[in-house]
Amino acid sequence: MISRLDELISALRCLPGVGPRSAQRMAYHLLQRDRAGALALARALEGATANIRHCSKCNNFSEVDISALCSSAKRDSGLLCVVEMPADLLMIEQSQCYRGFYFVLMGRLSPLDGIGAKELHLDRLVRRVSEHPCEVILATNFTVEGDATAHYLATLLQAQGVRVTRIARGLPVGGELEQVDSGTLAQAVLERREVSA
Amino acid sequence: MISRLDELISALRCLPGVGPRSAQRMAYHLLQRDRAGALALARALEGATANIRHCSKCNNFSEVDISALCSSAKRDSGLLCVVEMPADLLMIEQSQCYRGFYFVLMGRLSPLDGIGAKELHLDRLVRRVSEHPCEVILATNFTVEGDATAHYLATLLQAQGVRVTRIARGLPVGGELEQVDSGTLAQAVLERREVSA
Repeated sequence: MISRLDELISALRCLPGVGPRSAQRMAYHLLQRDRAGALALARALEGATANIRHCSKCNNFSEVDISALCSSAKRDSGLLCVVEMPADLLMIEQSQCYRGFYFVLMGRLSPLDGIGAKELHLDRLVRRVSEHPCEVILATNFTVEGDATAHYLATLLQAQGVRVTRIARGLPVGGELEQVDSGTLAQAVLERREVSA
Repeated sequence: MISRLDELISALRCLPGVGPRSAQRMAYHLLQRDRAGALALARALEGATANIRHCSKCNNFSEVDISALCSSAKRDSGLLCVVEMPADLLMIEQSQCYRGFYFVLMGRLSPLDGIGAKELHLDRLVRRVSEHPCEVILATNFTVEGDATAHYLATLLQAQGVRVTRIARGLPVGGELEQVDSGTLAQAVLERREVSA
């Protein structure tokens, strides 16, 4: 017979980065010190799984069919920014530098993990751009997988005559040459810009 | 308005060792890749909080008032082993070296964290030993706090005329002097035993 404690420990292992030891520690902690937190977590999990789906326009998590951002009339419909995760969208929104729409991939191309064009719903992105032509800004991470995803998307969209741009790579604001890594510095030199008079 | 996603992220932070970043990563992972796991976790949390309490004899987690181990007739009632956590009890049971009863402290004395004699229900331990006199084996960890707890318990119980022992400290089985840390080696020399003829 499996006890409810064992059941809880094995259920906690569905969380990413939680192995048998941490699952045990978490279960003990919740039962011993935070039963109210455990119940609140149970309710939040149920509420979220039952109510959160994907926005049919930007693919971000949303509790309604079209998210508030996508249905806003104040946004610039000439710009579509492609990001990997909802957190990236939040970062860009916080920077207050962008007033266009978004498409959230919910991941990146990663053939080894079985994540290909189909899993990222790239067909929906292509359909959206062909229905409403606009500039597509690729804002995937500057990691190997993020770069590969940007390259794949650029090829795919440029074949359809879409204007595709990539966010700039270079030294961070306030960054000093002495402290930046050589890869970033090399890219900053390579991708240097004309100084306007 | 707080969205259900934010609610889930903040609820996940009741787990020990989970900060804002990991909570966000966990929420995204569950919603994106493992909604079944999220629901199973919700149900396990509810089942566990509703049904798991503490055995009134050994203080271990149990779904019944007196755990199976405590109600066993095959156990040696002359021995009571005090451990910090349920996992320690499992380790001793797995070693199959012990047939007595247990008392699980569910922690260790840690004044800085506000965990004193009252929080560990030491009064219940003292009452139990005074009602059923037996040898008390202290099997708390050999950490600073575990040692302090053992010292406190020994003083408390010996004042009542209870025979108190502590599990041995020394080189592990198969251990080599060359590889063991100097603290352990020093203790092993200090706590050396008479070789029987």
